[in-house]
Amino acid sequence: MRMTSGFIPTLRETPAEAEIPSHKLMLRAGFLRRAAAGIYTYLPLSHRVLMKIMQIIREEMNAAGGQEILLPIVQPAELWHATGRWVDYGEEMFRLKDRHGREFCLGPTHEEIITSLVQGEVSSYRQLPLLLYQIQNKYRDEIRPRFGIMRGREFIMKDLYSFDVDQRGLDESYQKMYQAYSNVFARCGLETKAVLADSGAIGGSLTHEFVVLADCGEAIIVYCANCDYAANVEKAECRPLPREDGEPMPLEKVSTPGQKTIEQVASFLGIAPARLIKTLLYKSDDEVIAALVRGDHELNEVKLARIVGTLQLAPADEETILRVTGAPAGYCGPVGLQNVRLIVDHAVAALVNGVAGANEEDAHLLNVNMGRDYEPDLVTDIRLVKAGDPCPKCGTALLGARGIEVGQIFQLGTKYSEALRAYYLDEKGEQKPIVMGCYGIGVTRTMASIIEQHHDEHGIIWPMSVAPFHVHIVSLGDKELALAEELYEQLTSSGVEVLLDDRDERPGVKFKDADLIGIPIRITIGAKSLAEGKVELKLRSGEWEGKLAPDEVCGKVRELIASKGA
Amino acid sequence: MRMTSGFIPTLRETPAEAEIPSHKLMLRAGFLRRAAAGIYTYLPLSHRVLMKIMQIIREEMNAAGGQEILLPIVQPAELWHATGRWVDYGEEMFRLKDRHGREFCLGPTHEEIITSLVQGEVSSYRQLPLLLYQIQNKYRDEIRPRFGIMRGREFIMKDLYSFDVDQRGLDESYQKMYQAYSNVFARCGLETKAVLADSGAIGGSLTHEFVVLADCGEAIIVYCANCDYAANVEKAECRPLPREDGEPMPLEKVSTPGQKTIEQVASFLGIAPARLIKTLLYKSDDEVIAALVRGDHELNEVKLARIVGTLQLAPADEETILRVTGAPAGYCGPVGLQNVRLIVDHAVAALVNGVAGANEEDAHLLNVNMGRDYEPDLVTDIRLVKAGDPCPKCGTALLGARGIEVGQIFQLGTKYSEALRAYYLDEKGEQKPIVMGCYGIGVTRTMASIIEQHHDEHGIIWPMSVAPFHVHIVSLGDKELALAEELYEQLTSSGVEVLLDDRDERPGVKFKDADLIGIPIRITIGAKSLAEGKVELKLRSGEWEGKLAPDEVCGKVRELIASKGA
Repeated sequence: MRMTSGFIPTLRETPAEAEIPSHKLMLRAGFLRRAAAGIYTYLPLSHRVLMKIMQIIREEMNAAGGQEILLPIVQPAELWHATGRWVDYGEEMFRLKDRHGREFCLGPTHEEIITSLVQGEVSSYRQLPLLLYQIQNKYRDEIRPRFGIMRGREFIMKDLYSFDVDQRGLDESYQKMYQAYSNVFARCGLETKAVLADSGAIGGSLTHEFVVLADCGEAIIVYCANCDYAANVEKAECRPLPREDGEPMPLEKVSTPGQKTIEQVASFLGIAPARLIKTLLYKSDDEVIAALVRGDHELNEVKLARIVGTLQLAPADEETILRVTGAPAGYCGPVGLQNVRLIVDHAVAALVNGVAGANEEDAHLLNVNMGRDYEPDLVTDIRLVKAGDPCPKCGTALLGARGIEVGQIFQLGTKYSEALRAYYLDEKGEQKPIVMGCYGIGVTRTMASIIEQHHDEHGIIWPMSVAPFHVHIVSLGDKELALAEELYEQLTSSGVEVLLDDRDERPGVKFKDADLIGIPIRITIGAKSLAEGKVELKLRSGEWEGKLAPDEVCGKVRELIASKGA
Repeated sequence: MRMTSGFIPTLRETPAEAEIPSHKLMLRAGFLRRAAAGIYTYLPLSHRVLMKIMQIIREEMNAAGGQEILLPIVQPAELWHATGRWVDYGEEMFRLKDRHGREFCLGPTHEEIITSLVQGEVSSYRQLPLLLYQIQNKYRDEIRPRFGIMRGREFIMKDLYSFDVDQRGLDESYQKMYQAYSNVFARCGLETKAVLADSGAIGGSLTHEFVVLADCGEAIIVYCANCDYAANVEKAECRPLPREDGEPMPLEKVSTPGQKTIEQVASFLGIAPARLIKTLLYKSDDEVIAALVRGDHELNEVKLARIVGTLQLAPADEETILRVTGAPAGYCGPVGLQNVRLIVDHAVAALVNGVAGANEEDAHLLNVNMGRDYEPDLVTDIRLVKAGDPCPKCGTALLGARGIEVGQIFQLGTKYSEALRAYYLDEKGEQKPIVMGCYGIGVTRTMASIIEQHHDEHGIIWPMSVAPFHVHIVSLGDKELALAEELYEQLTSSGVEVLLDDRDERPGVKFKDADLIGIPIRITIGAKSLAEGKVELKLRSGEWEGKLAPDEVCGKVRELIASKGA
């Protein structure tokens, strides 16, 4: 492509809307434009990148036995009613009516429609396993679309669904996808971590997220440098602690006027926050739940909700707190609490002579001991892991990081097949529900994540495998243009993808744009080196540069492309 | 792909929902399933065909200078208000609101959003011309979705938009696209006619439809076997006729009790319908229009609406007819009509001594002559062409045909650029509106049209260029399977796309499915020919068949593929 005729509208300034590097660079380098909040147009350069990412995905999905199909974006409401998700999805789902008043949604995901398809076509174990996938737009009406295409409302996903006869089959499909996902991201030049995650509203049991480590990421993970343990903080387990040494001392009430927060109480009493018991009240349906975590720990609401067995868990309001504890918020504690389900974190259970609220305004209790002063309904793991906590597998201190979730794989089990009656007959003629898995990759988000991992202060540094072009020829003047055109033709005809800067611009502008756009190999044709019969070749990554005679260029370029794996 | 693991759910019976061959065959051969009215899932075989059609389109669009982008499907209402089409599109547009109550539509087409994009990026003649295109879903809430993917509500389109500095540039872009479209359809194995068409609501002047001749088609066209003239009947011109010979005779009123239709009057008076003048009353805003066509001709409402300059043209109601003519419908005529705009077709103007309604119940007038008995406001071409009419270019009798519109190209001019302020500065620094064209191909409809043109009573006969696979290996028994697998590996590894029927089914079932699916080359491996050391090869089209030694197969297959242009 020649830049004089290409639609590559680069910008000198970063538009105010952009906050993170990938968003800024995609706008500045002419890859992306905003059409509405969370809705974007992909310009020619990003379309080329997307095509390459999709091709990598196709190859890996096909190699794993996947078959590509195309499901509707506009989906009838009835299917979603059958699984209950028409209601569960809430405001995140875009809904519409057709001219006859029938209700539809824009698919935020496709479990319902593909299960219904398979229900109609599969009746025997002989037709299984089946791995079906598609690549196309998904829709989620995010309350706060942000970071460009990182969290958009219209975005491209690859979603694959596996259909197996039993859990063992699902385990195999899951393992295949785990490997295929690792391959996809590696081939895209991404360093990812596969972390254990919580399956949340989608249902099912085992699930992994593939996370690109990046400071702008919204996922918080922990991982072990010693073993292979890695998990989303929502999911990460905390080991039970051994009970502390020491003898229980007599319970003692102390006055703590106006001291409500952990920090205030700890400082007022001159003790470490780790000695305190934090008592958090929640409402779920008609029940009040007290969750006890140590003063220096955070409650993990996802874990608590899973234990309670609800999707609807809300902090108790002021009125409930007063009614249940007899005191305002800040003075709640486990001793003497009535009609409340007491769920205690392992770390609290291990405390000897802890400090808790007295359920009385301006008062706390010293020397609180579980078993003597209060009885738990359940002792379990309800706290949020943090960096430094011991790895639940090997005990080494965990490391923490932020990341971008680019893919997630789920074992769904039979949730959808039972709701939509997708049964098959097994070898004995018995009817059984199909066992399902689902596997997503955010295609547009993958593109943005690649930029997050591959850029510098001057612009993008595309990995060869997904670069919009392999080579950027920068011709510095009219005299040099003839050679530039010659190399362009030569390279293009040998299958190399070339962007030719044939514009009538100053060298500074051309170099700035080349850095910004980030094509891996740059060939500069200028008067100075040309006088020596040479052109300059360099990698945008800075890993290599040199001068070559024009007839050596083609060979060297092919060598560089091959070595970079595209 | 092996049929034992492939998702190819063929059906023995044709589902009741299907009316036309392509729809029936796509359902039976396992290409397509219905998800809702006018909304479909594309199964693996049709996905493969779609990918090939899209690749052909991409190659031709790129060769013509097109650059691929991706525009949003969900589009903000504001842009559509700016061009007035938020209202004009009516019920055919799917509309929705986001969680904040903002209005959006699902793009039925993309003129608004791409013009707005270009408006933001293009400011100088140096950035033009520009040809931008995309391939993705479009949405139209058809009142009567039918014929499977032929007229769906969710369908795939390629749409390209051209941006030029002036009409001459647009003419060049249009000519490029005309050629590119001809190439695309030819490469897809389609025989199409490019016919002149009416631009209707989209605006603009010159437009061609690319029509696949097929009996199930909804487009009616005429074309000349002698010259290159071809047009949609809505657009096709009719030559003026020479005035008839003969002298005007005195006007005479005759009683025609209860004779209202052309047929009744002609038969009652014992004259040919061609002697009658049909007077049709229409309402447009506050005006009443009388359109006069010959008794044996049909009025072309599209032509009339264009002449009147309105999109809102409705037949006058009974009350208006009575008020304007003083008589009920069936007795209307031009003589003595007051406060009515009289638009007369050439063929009526040529009549000497015609017969018309007397504007009086149960009465007609004989010897009606224009100029003497009534004065026209306009004499022009308002009738619908029919087969046998003279070609407007060369006079040869036109032929008529039905067809499927698979593509349309439009000269839009400045309608959208002016509405959305997409201006550029020319060489003299003057601000001018960008001159636009738009060019669509129905991708999913193209697939269905290929089947309409390429099938027999047993199934589909795919052209090599768009076939889901090149070769179908039918292995007739367990003993033959080893050789089948060997050939499968051999062909696949040399880049040939092979479907292997490795199922445990009777030969009859396998042959029936092979005919149904319609892969171009079939290799049959059966005991009988294998005893002679041969396998059978044949083309689904019936053009060739023969027996070959297994080691000759690969060469012959490659030769056949090359000769069929894939």
